[in-house]
Amino acid sequence: MPLDPQRFLDDLHKLRSFGASGVGKGVMRQAYSDADIAARRWLAGRMEEAGLEPHFDPLGNLFGLAGERSMLVGSHSDSQPEGGWLDGALGVVAGLEVARAAREAGGPPISCVSFQDEEGRFGVLTGSDVWTGKLALEEADGFTDTTGNTLAEMRGKMAGFTGNFLPHNRFSGFLEMHIEQGPYLEETGLGLGVVTDIVGIRDMRISFEGRQNHAGTTPMHLRRDAFQALSAFNTALNSRIAEVVNPATVWTIGHVALHPNASSVVPGRVEFSMQWRDADADRLARMQTLIRETAQEIAADHNVTAELGTVMGIEPAAMDARFQAELAAAAEALAPGKWQKMPSGALHDAANLATVMPAGMLFVPSIGGISHAFDEDTDEADLVLGLQVLDSAARALAG
Amino acid sequence: MPLDPQRFLDDLHKLRSFGASGVGKGVMRQAYSDADIAARRWLAGRMEEAGLEPHFDPLGNLFGLAGERSMLVGSHSDSQPEGGWLDGALGVVAGLEVARAAREAGGPPISCVSFQDEEGRFGVLTGSDVWTGKLALEEADGFTDTTGNTLAEMRGKMAGFTGNFLPHNRFSGFLEMHIEQGPYLEETGLGLGVVTDIVGIRDMRISFEGRQNHAGTTPMHLRRDAFQALSAFNTALNSRIAEVVNPATVWTIGHVALHPNASSVVPGRVEFSMQWRDADADRLARMQTLIRETAQEIAADHNVTAELGTVMGIEPAAMDARFQAELAAAAEALAPGKWQKMPSGALHDAANLATVMPAGMLFVPSIGGISHAFDEDTDEADLVLGLQVLDSAARALAG
Repeated sequence: MPLDPQRFLDDLHKLRSFGASGVGKGVMRQAYSDADIAARRWLAGRMEEAGLEPHFDPLGNLFGLAGERSMLVGSHSDSQPEGGWLDGALGVVAGLEVARAAREAGGPPISCVSFQDEEGRFGVLTGSDVWTGKLALEEADGFTDTTGNTLAEMRGKMAGFTGNFLPHNRFSGFLEMHIEQGPYLEETGLGLGVVTDIVGIRDMRISFEGRQNHAGTTPMHLRRDAFQALSAFNTALNSRIAEVVNPATVWTIGHVALHPNASSVVPGRVEFSMQWRDADADRLARMQTLIRETAQEIAADHNVTAELGTVMGIEPAAMDARFQAELAAAAEALAPGKWQKMPSGALHDAANLATVMPAGMLFVPSIGGISHAFDEDTDEADLVLGLQVLDSAARALAG
Repeated sequence: MPLDPQRFLDDLHKLRSFGASGVGKGVMRQAYSDADIAARRWLAGRMEEAGLEPHFDPLGNLFGLAGERSMLVGSHSDSQPEGGWLDGALGVVAGLEVARAAREAGGPPISCVSFQDEEGRFGVLTGSDVWTGKLALEEADGFTDTTGNTLAEMRGKMAGFTGNFLPHNRFSGFLEMHIEQGPYLEETGLGLGVVTDIVGIRDMRISFEGRQNHAGTTPMHLRRDAFQALSAFNTALNSRIAEVVNPATVWTIGHVALHPNASSVVPGRVEFSMQWRDADADRLARMQTLIRETAQEIAADHNVTAELGTVMGIEPAAMDARFQAELAAAAEALAPGKWQKMPSGALHDAANLATVMPAGMLFVPSIGGISHAFDEDTDEADLVLGLQVLDSAARALAG
């Protein structure tokens, strides 16, 4: 039996009934929540019905295994605390359908997967971090979520049905389909994206410490105002960074905490996040230098002290050239002229998988560029086209 | 018996035992707290011992009355949640000593006062707002503090010993001594300040609403970043406002709330406080126009919407010319060449009193310009010099 788009869509809609938000098609299915675990058990049942062998590893990563060695296709079925129905769920159900159709058609073996905690309730891409060996299980077990639960406690909820970690060499490569989570594909009208690189991320906390003062009695020239230092830093950085970046580079100040944060008090302290992303590790390093220099200069100008925290890094990951080529060939065959190569500005499990096997990624458009929100959506025609391209590339790579 | 500086200092130190923070000389004596009420009852006892008639009005404002009609000298004995030992307490105990010494010396009648809730647990200068008729008691009664207590409930704690409101015409004028709460006097080495005006305050909330987006997948040119709008607004305002202000003008962004305030999310919304102070109502209005225009322009430039809240205003209050002259004459007599005229950048009860009777104010230095903090302090020699100048001016004005 060939690929069945309606079965794929039906399963995708069924999956959003686990943790349904009741607002649009949104879901609340955080890793290890009851809804997440129920969804994984339902997925395992669908795998079994398809003749794939379900296997939970100690983290709760769920594999649907075919053959001794196979291509692996999938993504993650956990969501943000308030998430959309597609996000990783799309790639998981697409992987299920591709693996199921290959088995039914007597094609080369294709396995599927739903990684656990891609959304980082604990850590970042916790499930694939641990499986690919980037993060030790013992260390991850001590990670806590925002309410103080440890990963060890939470994965304990799945202990009754988990097995061992699978060896990586059981799989010959990894393909992941995902919504873009950005506005590029919709803007350009090119409905499919073949991912070239998953960008690297640098994240640091910066603080400026000045002097908290009365906002009525402290003359402007004697102030050491931490907010003014932040604003000047941002302005200077925006102007200087233009020399270093390219159009795909992004940088963001997304978190700001002023102290004491009162309208009648000159702010004595500010802590803020500085995050930047690019596919080129050298550019990330040049940006880091510029950020440090600018923060130090502005601090001196404003008579405040700058404290620059540790830089947390996730390295850029290039997708495998052959995997890109097969995805591109399938896209061109099914949607001639309607696809493009592009980097992924968001992080995905494929970035981890690329460190242990060849990996490739395919994007479908996000309506309005919206993701991590209940109103995230994609036209069903785009979902089905993505499924067909993914299937075609997976069979070519598995064969 | 003449003015007794040691008795004044002893009473001032005794007063800080009510609500002592245990950190330096700091106090925690918020309006209507048990410590505040105990302090007021102790002050009432000290008034009675001095032959002054203690009188609590319905708000808990405490007067120590002398004669049928008299000068009034005082300030407030409530503190910020975490406050210094001097602040309003200095002016209250100075008023007590001046009134007590005048009575003992058989001089003209001088009364003293401690207003309630100058620090604005409810409202702004709640006790003197209500007494001077700026604020109706019925309205004030509905005000709540940050934990939801109403003023009506809190002043109910004092109901057993309060009487009626006193008529304003019982007093011929008001003098208030206070710490500067800023760094001017210490910086100039001129140890006393005769206040010319209490500056007016304008306060508004501004918000910029853009679009919350993924910080990895949203290219810079498509962002509608609320934090970037705030930073650009601040930069533009600082540059434009120079045309309008004078060296005593101040303006402050002290409160900033970003949404969702996460390092991986382009901020979709920011709300912030914009406060400005000046002694000239026209200048305050010109600044308001500039702030509105700049916010609108920056919003348009950044593709965000600006929402400008209601402007809350406290009008500038000029101190009475004769009261200024008597304070200046006393300062020049006791500390030749060591005083200056200056505006008050902080708000004080004298601003309200000036609307119903002639009023004057005297400042003593704040070490390091620090106030509203446990380490607020002033040299005792400066406290005593201030007391002597206040006493001299009060007797001249009462006579």
